[in-house]
Formats: sequence, C-alpha cells, structure tokens
Amino acid sequence: MRHVDVLIIGGGPAGISAAIWCKRLGIDCLLLEEQSQLGGQLFNIFNEIIDYPGMRTKNGIEMQREMVKHFVEMDCLYEVNTKVLFIDERSKTVKVKKQAKEQEICYTYLILATGSSQRKLGVPGEQQMIDRGEVYSASADGERLKGKTVAIIGGGDRAFEGAHLLSSKAREVYLIHRSTRFKAREQYVERVVSNPGIKVMTDTEVTAIHGDRHVTSIDLESKNKEYKSKNLLVDAVLIRLGVAPNVELIKGNVATAQNGLVVTDEVHQSSNPFIYAIGDACTTPLFSSISSSAGQGTIVAKHISSLLTKS
Amino acid sequence: MRHVDVLIIGGGPAGISAAIWCKRLGIDCLLLEEQSQLGGQLFNIFNEIIDYPGMRTKNGIEMQREMVKHFVEMDCLYEVNTKVLFIDERSKTVKVKKQAKEQEICYTYLILATGSSQRKLGVPGEQQMIDRGEVYSASADGERLKGKTVAIIGGGDRAFEGAHLLSSKAREVYLIHRSTRFKAREQYVERVVSNPGIKVMTDTEVTAIHGDRHVTSIDLESKNKEYKSKNLLVDAVLIRLGVAPNVELIKGNVATAQNGLVVTDEVHQSSNPFIYAIGDACTTPLFSSISSSAGQGTIVAKHISSLLTKS
Repeated sequence: MRHVDVLIIGGGPAGISAAIWCKRLGIDCLLLEEQSQLGGQLFNIFNEIIDYPGMRTKNGIEMQREMVKHFVEMDCLYEVNTKVLFIDERSKTVKVKKQAKEQEICYTYLILATGSSQRKLGVPGEQQMIDRGEVYSASADGERLKGKTVAIIGGGDRAFEGAHLLSSKAREVYLIHRSTRFKAREQYVERVVSNPGIKVMTDTEVTAIHGDRHVTSIDLESKNKEYKSKNLLVDAVLIRLGVAPNVELIKGNVATAQNGLVVTDEVHQSSNPFIYAIGDACTTPLFSSISSSAGQGTIVAKHISSLLTKS
Repeated sequence: MRHVDVLIIGGGPAGISAAIWCKRLGIDCLLLEEQSQLGGQLFNIFNEIIDYPGMRTKNGIEMQREMVKHFVEMDCLYEVNTKVLFIDERSKTVKVKKQAKEQEICYTYLILATGSSQRKLGVPGEQQMIDRGEVYSASADGERLKGKTVAIIGGGDRAFEGAHLLSSKAREVYLIHRSTRFKAREQYVERVVSNPGIKVMTDTEVTAIHGDRHVTSIDLESKNKEYKSKNLLVDAVLIRLGVAPNVELIKGNVATAQNGLVVTDEVHQSSNPFIYAIGDACTTPLFSSISSSAGQGTIVAKHISSLLTKS
C-alpha cells in the first residue's frame, strides 16, 4: 500500500500552501483533489483580488494560475479527479477513487483542506446565472450594480450587510428571506428595516431565476398567502445563504463545533493528533481569506515538520 | 491631535498586510515605520523566496517591491522615518518622532507589527559581511557552500540543525559556542557531536571576522585557556544566535511570555483589548514566515473591522 508522511485532502489555497511548504521542508507529501483542477474556491471569485499582499489579480482564475504554477514548479505531488471515499483513522488509511479505480493510501499525518461550499437555492436558472459570471460582491460591485434592481436572498449578516451596502447604489434593493426570523445581528436588521430604499420580503421562497443573457426576473412563492406566486423583475440576484464547511468525510473522526467547523488548536491540530485542518474547513466565514488560508498551510507544515524531525 | 481608528507600528509583511486589509475594509488606518522604507525583515532575505504561495521572488528585496507596490496602489496611509517613542495605553496615544519633530497620535486600536531582530555578535567585520550579502540559509544554500569551510556560531536548535544540514555538503563545519551548555534539543546535539564531519568548539568567543571581498577567517578567543587567541581559516560564517522580538515599546503595557513574545489570542488581541500584535512580535521563530505574517494581518484587520462595525 502506498504510504506518505503527509496526505493533504483538498487543493484550494490552504492545501496548495501546505503542499508548497511540505516540499520546502523536505516532507514526503501528496495532495488529493476531487475536481479536475487545483484551485478550490478560487474558481468562484469573479472580482479583482486586492487583498493578498504582494499580488493583485483580475479574478480568482488568475490567482489560481499563479498558485498552481508555483505548486507545479516546486514539483509537489498531487492527484486530481481523485475523490476520498473514506478515512479510517485507526489504520491511518484513506480509500480513494479515481476514474472507477479504488485504492488505499496510508498516511502519517492527514491535513484536511476541504474548504467550504456556498449554500445554493437549488432552483432552475441558478447554475446558469453563476456560469454566466453573474456573481456579485456587495462591497466591491457597487458601481457595477448602480441604478439596477437587485434581489438579495438570505437572512444572515452577509445578506443584510449586502442590502445595506447596495441601497445607496442600486435603484431598488429587495431582501428576500424564507422565514420571518433572521440570523443576522440585530443592528444589521434594524439598519435595513429602517432603510426606505430596501424592501424586505419575509416568508418568501425564490422558486426560479429567469433570463437568457443576464438575469431579468425571479419567481417568488409566499408562505403567508399574501400572494401565491409572483414574478419580480430584477437585474441581479445575490444569493447569501451562507457557507458550510466540507467536513462530511471527517465527521465522527474529529471534534467539530456547532457551526460544523473542525475544532483545531493554534497549530491546526484537530482532536485527533494525526489529523489537521486548515482553511475554510476550520475557519469561520468572517475570517476566511486566501491570505489566512495560505498562512495556515504554512503553520501546519512547519509544525508537522518539527514532529517528523523529532521522530 | 490626530486620531486614527487603527494605528499600525511596523511596516514588514505583517503590518503591510494589516494595512492593505484595513483599506479593503474601509477602516481609517495609518502605518508607522521607523526605517526609511517599508519592508522590515524582507531586506534580510538574500535567497530566493519559494514559499509564499503564488509568488516566487529572487530575494527579499523583490518581495518588498511587490508588497510596497500593492500597498501604495491601495492608497494606504503611512509615514516612514517615524519612530514611536512612547505608547500611553491609558490615553490611547502614541508619541512619535520624525526628523526631530515630535507629535502625538491618538488611536482606537493599536496593532504592533514590530517584528524581531537577529541577534548579532557585535564584532568587527560582521556588518561588512552582512552588507556584502554573505548571509546563508543552511537548508537552501547547500550547493553554494559545497566544498567550503563553514563556521556556525550559536548553541540553539538552528545552529545545530544548520551544522547537521551542511555537514554533508561543506568540506568542514565548525560549530562555535561561547558556553559549554547548549539550548538546542538533545537529539540535535547528539546528532552533531557524533558527526565526525563537525568540529564543536565550546567556551569560545568569535572576536572578529576577516576578509575584504568575502570572508577568509575569524578570530577566536577561548575561555578555557586551551589557547588564548586563534585565527581560523573559513569561507563562510553563519550567525545563529537566535532572534528577539522587538517589544521594548510595549513591555509593561501588555503580557509577554518568557521568550519575550507578546501573548495574543486567536484573533491576535493582547492582554489589552485595544492592542493587537501580529508577525514576529508574537510568533515563535519556528512559525515565522511571510505567509503566516500576512495571514495574521488579515485576521486582525477583519476582527477590528467587526468591532468597529458594531460600535
């Protein structure tokens, strides 16, 4: 059976950083990525990246290219299209599948860098909208959304903050939430509710997003019977349903917090001393960034290096 | 009196990252740097930087240029040649001096990004050697030091690790330490002492470094009277006396650990809730890196942003 000192699951910025550092420190390391390309959530960044110190890129794809170039130049070992099916923490083995072929890999230390996923509405038209690149940042896209009618879907901080930020730019802002209760902080909610430029629609589900070249309208269904179904003309939809860490693989093996995040200490060790977590699998959305993910990859590789040197 | 929401002391990677993120998050921020240029310890990196994910640079100066370019393009406010003389945590004010002119600046939050300094021997020839760029990494410069006679000065982990790493490359390795007691871990010491390629000289002080274009020899003085003074022919000197965090300014204001580092929590808050520390002022040399410093700058700016939004 194949054995590696460090096995990294996930090829986003955190995993890439850990692999580069393992290589730098002379550690025998392999990175596994489920998708066909490394980069993880970088593929979901459509705006300019201005906050990775020393490097500005047009978008996430450009950052992905630079990171992968660095990774490949360092001769880091990796496998794409490789799904981890199962982690056996007792035998320190993972079972992976690549194109119908299954194999087992044995590790000394495992680094979970599986990231998080944006929750989606799961309605017709949503994926097409995303594929067209109609993905906006409320803080950075004020100019792009100037004079437009914007629907923000969600009931948490980011939904309310986005509505507040865009209310001064957009022509009209709708905040649409399926419940009457909000997860957002009270002062965020107050600020939005008292803003005459924002229409808050509660107990309302979005059932479809329409538009061929760009979003033109959404279908709404009200639960409080005010209206059964309604078509609302909008120019842009911002889905703010939050993110969920990708921790299905590890659940039960290590301690996770109520929000699903893997609990780690200051060197990113989980409750299992042979399993580490970095990046969005263990970081709240508030602190999630390329920069902090890269920093965590560094820390964990340096820590594991010191353990391997000792032994 | 001038007031800023966030005052950053120190313009190395940690401070630059915090400033870029403050700007990104719309926080009123000012960075103060004592030297004439931003960059901090980047000026001491003479080797290729291969471990900042996404960016490889020939040396620290090239990295400095990219980081400063980014910083300046973001319109971050800063002052160079500006020494902080005093921090008054009660009035939340710092006294600074720029070209004989003193002024006071009031802050809401203070970020200490003062870095650390390499301890030096303080002997003739040392600064000239550094200025000539004769600064080596034991892990990265094996090829550059191949076949050479190398003196490593120090008694800690890095000195012993360096001696071990270079023993297979260099022609001869001397490990020179002023005491007979070592701070290094036992297994490091054992590995070096049992290595016939390394000569360990204890109770020995280096009193001078000679050489015009490059190092040619060093003067040694033995405390155990074996020899009074001795000139040793060497081609390279690696000074490994450890680093000390630059925390003189803050001592007494916030809790520091025995190693001098500012004690911080997971969002880099110190024992004073209005004072934060990032980078080498709060990070052990083992975990010090451009990448983790940048990550810490991100975290602290995001955290302070959430506090400022609340208020």
